[in-house]
Amino acid sequence: MSVKTTDVRTLSRNFKDYDGKEVTVAGWVRNMRDSKTFGFLVLADGTFFNPVQVVFNQDKIDNFDEVCHLNVGAAVYVTGTVVVTPEAKQPFEIQATKVDIEGKSTPDYPIQPKRHTMEYLRTQTHLRPRTNTFQAVFRVRSLCAYAIHKFFQERDFVYVHTPLITGSDCEGAGEMFQVTTMDLNNIPKTEDGKVDFSQDFFGHATNLTVSGQLNGETYAQAFKNIYTFGPTFRAENSNTTRHAAEFWMIEPEISFADLEDDMILAEDMLKYVINYVLEHAPEEMEFFNNFIDKGLLDRLHHVANSDFGRITYTDAVAELEKHNDEFDYKVSWGCDLQTEHERYLTEKIFGKPVFVTDYPKEIKAFYMKLNEDGKTVAAMDCLVPGIGEIIGGSQREDDYDVLLKRMQECGLKEEDYQFYLDLRKYGSSRHAGFGLGFERCVMYLTGMGNIRDVIPFPRTVGNCEL
Amino acid sequence: MSVKTTDVRTLSRNFKDYDGKEVTVAGWVRNMRDSKTFGFLVLADGTFFNPVQVVFNQDKIDNFDEVCHLNVGAAVYVTGTVVVTPEAKQPFEIQATKVDIEGKSTPDYPIQPKRHTMEYLRTQTHLRPRTNTFQAVFRVRSLCAYAIHKFFQERDFVYVHTPLITGSDCEGAGEMFQVTTMDLNNIPKTEDGKVDFSQDFFGHATNLTVSGQLNGETYAQAFKNIYTFGPTFRAENSNTTRHAAEFWMIEPEISFADLEDDMILAEDMLKYVINYVLEHAPEEMEFFNNFIDKGLLDRLHHVANSDFGRITYTDAVAELEKHNDEFDYKVSWGCDLQTEHERYLTEKIFGKPVFVTDYPKEIKAFYMKLNEDGKTVAAMDCLVPGIGEIIGGSQREDDYDVLLKRMQECGLKEEDYQFYLDLRKYGSSRHAGFGLGFERCVMYLTGMGNIRDVIPFPRTVGNCEL
Repeated sequence: MSVKTTDVRTLSRNFKDYDGKEVTVAGWVRNMRDSKTFGFLVLADGTFFNPVQVVFNQDKIDNFDEVCHLNVGAAVYVTGTVVVTPEAKQPFEIQATKVDIEGKSTPDYPIQPKRHTMEYLRTQTHLRPRTNTFQAVFRVRSLCAYAIHKFFQERDFVYVHTPLITGSDCEGAGEMFQVTTMDLNNIPKTEDGKVDFSQDFFGHATNLTVSGQLNGETYAQAFKNIYTFGPTFRAENSNTTRHAAEFWMIEPEISFADLEDDMILAEDMLKYVINYVLEHAPEEMEFFNNFIDKGLLDRLHHVANSDFGRITYTDAVAELEKHNDEFDYKVSWGCDLQTEHERYLTEKIFGKPVFVTDYPKEIKAFYMKLNEDGKTVAAMDCLVPGIGEIIGGSQREDDYDVLLKRMQECGLKEEDYQFYLDLRKYGSSRHAGFGLGFERCVMYLTGMGNIRDVIPFPRTVGNCEL
Repeated sequence: MSVKTTDVRTLSRNFKDYDGKEVTVAGWVRNMRDSKTFGFLVLADGTFFNPVQVVFNQDKIDNFDEVCHLNVGAAVYVTGTVVVTPEAKQPFEIQATKVDIEGKSTPDYPIQPKRHTMEYLRTQTHLRPRTNTFQAVFRVRSLCAYAIHKFFQERDFVYVHTPLITGSDCEGAGEMFQVTTMDLNNIPKTEDGKVDFSQDFFGHATNLTVSGQLNGETYAQAFKNIYTFGPTFRAENSNTTRHAAEFWMIEPEISFADLEDDMILAEDMLKYVINYVLEHAPEEMEFFNNFIDKGLLDRLHHVANSDFGRITYTDAVAELEKHNDEFDYKVSWGCDLQTEHERYLTEKIFGKPVFVTDYPKEIKAFYMKLNEDGKTVAAMDCLVPGIGEIIGGSQREDDYDVLLKRMQECGLKEEDYQFYLDLRKYGSSRHAGFGLGFERCVMYLTGMGNIRDVIPFPRTVGNCEL
């Protein structure tokens, strides 16, 4: 077994218990300074946001000169005594009795103890998690993912892995990536010159999924409440701060439930995740509030303690039309709401998160439940201050004939959706669900402005590094 | 808001508290029988393995005749009084005062209350989760996934989403799926007649990942302890009961840790997951033990309470050679162990799970740490009774020069792995990790014999339904 070490997290959370005791900590040198006879070494082991300060004295360790010459980034094992330092900036320090050098670094180490730009750090995908910002981002991302699982599992939802490779295109949303094992240099062709997919791995054309919803519905009609949490893909040629080609999505689906149940679930989930992250990553959240997005903590606390508003699309449009002179795109009934409208609604009109419901059927997907007016569908978008839409959902059309008619209107082939129609034939129940883009949620929680900075290895047009 | 209902899980777990009280339950009819004046309806809502029995009387409900004519699969809301039935097979029943029909079914409903073969149910991907077997399988799958997250999160591991679309091929393991947005009918070509990947979405060739390990290592060298849990892909043309083209994998990676730490982690994780599932799905596990795999519970309890064995590959081969007459493939030093050998070791020689360590470098991947003997690497496979290998891991080569030499021996291009070499240049620390195939884990926990039956929508050669 390797050297027994104490995590900086354990030590930092319980430093008073360690006062005067000997510990061994392993980590990477973040910074150091030394004088003739002693030096300080800032050591981070990745388990805790704040590094620990190590003091090393010429007369206490064997390899003083060697330690003084360590470069930033080096890996070391430090053994020493914990000393509580109530007068100092840091609550405690370690007075080293031994410093074992595990792996050296070099003077040209790309992550120096100074401010690097986000653009530069994007070129150091494999090293940027060693910086303060990305330590904070990716710990919060991890906690956020777990909070989502915990929320649904505590409610006995079944986690369903919907497929990534798919023969269908769900709602026809966005451009799709094709998946193939055929030799691209020599694509097999049929006699009439078309691609011969019968020679491909699955025997027909396949794509990467854009949503697990339709698959998820089949499981919701068996387990009542389910959720998915997995990768989804869009091959959209858009180079924005909010779009990635590969991202993760959460899609719960609830049976014997309507749009109101759906909104309650979404609101509960968002509040749960916010509270979980605030509780489990206080240092990281403080950092974001101070250095990334001033006002973040106030905003999150406010959201966690608000009752989300409700307004129909029709009423929202009536409200927004009064302010059309303030918008780049003018609003009128029937149009899709733009981010500027969404933010105006949630920030200016409501001053808190709000659900907009009952959109015109023309601007929503075929599977959404047609309202009695015949014009709108039981859809909801959840808008939050600072972002706009964070969640989109709906009650699903559960009537076989109405669904079939909508599919025909939308030009979908009945045979491609037979499984989906079957759900409306054999014990159809009212049901609803929503989709939460995971990265958008992480951006919201951290205040990070670019989706490339909340994904460990982001994939965007022209960019698929590592 | 929709009709307020009580989940069958809540009701069943606390039925004594509900005795004499009125509840509304929503669910699907699993079975029914009726006589002239009353009937029984077996109702499942998917939240609990055992359905509830509903008694309906002609003089208590308005629509007696209609309810009598319901087909299996129909969705209903039942309101009635809970009555504890200590004399009966089931612990309680509901005496209905109201049965609201939510969605009818038809006499040709494909899931009838009789034994269907697994083969038949595979043709009903969207409906099979409504059967006992698949209710049990997919609830256990969900719990197993959550147990894995819980295990790592309780130990402060950071969950890392490694990318699915990748420009590299990791260890060159297995055939890969290509990902492209190019028009397959008209692949763009360069002047010299090759595929012009500069016109593809990412500007170069991309594939679906076969492992997140190398990416994971970059995060382990920043966060100390991390894990991945995501889909991986193999385009292998093998039609077996154990291989799927798309499956999920868990890959933890720990820094300042060696092979022994790695084995301790793997053993702790397996035991944790087994105990979690036994505790949270007792009805499902009982079902598997009775109807799928007799002896399952004994085996799992035994594993949860064993200290896993340890043996080097060299010693294991020496032991196995004594029994070469019992094997289809004869064992000798240098050969890969087959499933028959692995099972012999864990079942016959050890009678419990065992780690086999220190394999010849020739049969293992380039990144595994070379032992001092220069012949073997610090690899480990965890073998369990009834399956053989369930986990494979290793300490990673942390020496820049040794790693580079191994890469050259294996014919890998240095420039493709610069990021990976960087980890050995800037503060390299001893580290280790392993991979657990999630589906294999679910098969092990449930006793299910075919991987197609533990994946909601399985993808295999020639099969990509729904």
